[in-house]
Amino acid sequence: MSRKQYLIRRTYIGRIPEGADLLDSITKICKEEGIKIGKITAIGAVKKAVVAYYNQTEKKYYNHEFNKPMEILNCTGNVSLLNGQPFVHCHITLADEEGKCFGGHLMIGTVVFACEIFIEEYEGEILERVFDESSGLSLWHPGTILME
Amino acid sequence: MSRKQYLIRRTYIGRIPEGADLLDSITKICKEEGIKIGKITAIGAVKKAVVAYYNQTEKKYYNHEFNKPMEILNCTGNVSLLNGQPFVHCHITLADEEGKCFGGHLMIGTVVFACEIFIEEYEGEILERVFDESSGLSLWHPGTILME
Amino acid sequence: MSRKQYLIRRTYIGRIPEGADLLDSITKICKEEGIKIGKITAIGAVKKAVVAYYNQTEKKYYNHEFNKPMEILNCTGNVSLLNGQPFVHCHITLADEEGKCFGGHLMIGTVVFACEIFIEEYEGEILERVFDESSGLSLWHPGTILME
Repeated sequence: MSRKQYLIRRTYIGRIPEGADLLDSITKICKEEGIKIGKITAIGAVKKAVVAYYNQTEKKYYNHEFNKPMEILNCTGNVSLLNGQPFVHCHITLADEEGKCFGGHLMIGTVVFACEIFIEEYEGEILERVFDESSGLSLWHPGTILME
Repeated sequence: MSRKQYLIRRTYIGRIPEGADLLDSITKICKEEGIKIGKITAIGAVKKAVVAYYNQTEKKYYNHEFNKPMEILNCTGNVSLLNGQPFVHCHITLADEEGKCFGGHLMIGTVVFACEIFIEEYEGEILERVFDESSGLSLWHPGTILME
Repeated sequence: MSRKQYLIRRTYIGRIPEGADLLDSITKICKEEGIKIGKITAIGAVKKAVVAYYNQTEKKYYNHEFNKPMEILNCTGNVSLLNGQPFVHCHITLADEEGKCFGGHLMIGTVVFACEIFIEEYEGEILERVFDESSGLSLWHPGTILME
């Protein structure tokens, strides 16, 4: 078995408009364009945000809601397949009006003020999430990158 | 109308030297190389920093000055055209001596201690900022990425 | 002298498995694959983390240990040569159970819960670290990107 190698195909660049749900929008673009393997990079600002922290022992996500405008310092994520459909997984770093940072796993409910996004599309072997009992999460195959 | 798709051309990789203004330096490189569409990724450290938070109601930036050395955990941004010239828009995440994070919109006055930067240049349709009345910012055309 | 320009070759995408040391794992992959010039992007979660802050006056790293699970909001870094070997330099942004952010220079001792990583490999002129007296760090040649 060899490590999964991918080639970059094209990059979608654009602005997610004011009022759009950030995660919903990225997912919509990926589904409409048939992006199965991708990398997400974005900056901008939100009107409000919902992020999650995963409790590794309880295997459960806990949400944090920020009901105020914040800067998106960075939103980083990926696109792969889950149940045969493009699935977007992003983490987001936000800053409040004092410059203090907060963040987590990007959830539905994060509403864009202005957001500039790059979606890099790759071609190569299928990249798929399968349920992983041990973590309680849907993850990529562990043997693809770190081989003993 | 279709979504804007870009191809990566080349990537400039290098170190921004000690004492240089971070935003000024990136802008200088982009102008000298004629980079019109780009993605910025950097890590490193600053001697001091100025970041801004945009008040979405007042449509006004408020600066935060950090007059001390901090790590650059991440600086993410893009290059596009504003009034026909390469324009750099970056957000930065910093960590202080206790590991606490601060950040915002990267402003002039952020002085490099050491900074390692990637500037990825793309080719494709023009990517231009125009003044957007509603947000009070110069933004890309909203219809380029999220079509109803 | 001209600025160093690189072409992207391929991108390794995969999951760093639970229990692996994050920095060790990335270094292992780069050495095994002979990646000499690269960019690192990762998100995920850690079981515990060690990050460092560089005291620019004392020219000395100070570690911060976080002995608890945290989200990896972003891990950004690069690969270049140090003493002829692939060397990985990453900074990491973490979020705790309240969504508060912490981070610094990624150190050995950061243990993965789940981590999804992109390693983009570039081809082009050699990119090498040499000891820089002024900063006390091993850095790239300063003249490669910002020419006066």
